[in-house]
Amino acid sequence: MTPSFKTPSDDKSVLEEGTDISPRFDAMGLITAVVADSRDNEILMLAHMNDEALRLTIDTGIAHYWSRSRSALWKKGETSGNLQMVDEIRFDCDQDAVLLKVRVSGSDATCHTGRRSCFYRKVVKTDGETRLETDSAPLFDPKSVYTDH
Amino acid sequence: MTPSFKTPSDDKSVLEEGTDISPRFDAMGLITAVVADSRDNEILMLAHMNDEALRLTIDTGIAHYWSRSRSALWKKGETSGNLQMVDEIRFDCDQDAVLLKVRVSGSDATCHTGRRSCFYRKVVKTDGETRLETDSAPLFDPKSVYTDH
Repeated sequence: MTPSFKTPSDDKSVLEEGTDISPRFDAMGLITAVVADSRDNEILMLAHMNDEALRLTIDTGIAHYWSRSRSALWKKGETSGNLQMVDEIRFDCDQDAVLLKVRVSGSDATCHTGRRSCFYRKVVKTDGETRLETDSAPLFDPKSVYTDH
Repeated sequence: MTPSFKTPSDDKSVLEEGTDISPRFDAMGLITAVVADSRDNEILMLAHMNDEALRLTIDTGIAHYWSRSRSALWKKGETSGNLQMVDEIRFDCDQDAVLLKVRVSGSDATCHTGRRSCFYRKVVKTDGETRLETDSAPLFDPKSVYTDH
């Protein structure tokens, strides 16, 4: 089991250049996690982790998060089968965010809408209007997977 | 000037599948921004945007954020010269996060420590110990650039 994390140092150089894992959890006890595909760096989703989710992710090599909507520990993919196997975990300079490089099992989809990435809409400007345009299709039918959504 | 954004719909399908930009700003008036390099998808940093920063980014094509530490609008790179030219802006499913694909000018460094990415440390397990290991070097000397840090 991963030992408890260190308390973040007040010394900025220790926090930014040190080897200790000392996550700066926010007032809700969370840090932000960016999730990218190991194969091509495609950014798949953004989520949050509490202390337990971060430790479980490090220990098991399978991504765990904290679901803010359900206020519960969340083993991503437990329902859909699209588990995230973690190849690498990186911390940012001030240790309030992590980057996970993962391989997604199941249907290779991360978004609950069935798409590979949650970032499936881009900002476009047409005829003086700024709007969103979807440029990827679902890989699975969410209705057939999630019965409680 | 980009018109004001729409109020997020209570209808999940409109929020997730619609073409309206309706950011779900949090209690602090912020959404999260993930920033990746257009060239190779390298994840460079994580930051936050308020309404004004998001509009300025869409309008000017140069990344603007809200600095939570300084409580001020932040045109990234204004001091260091490492401006971020925005090639693409993507919204996630529930519109509380954006992904920016950018080209970084100046010394091609995004982190205030002088490194290309803020995620310059990875989690390693050695001799039963879990710690951080730095695997990239600064591209510029922060001391020569930031006089107020």
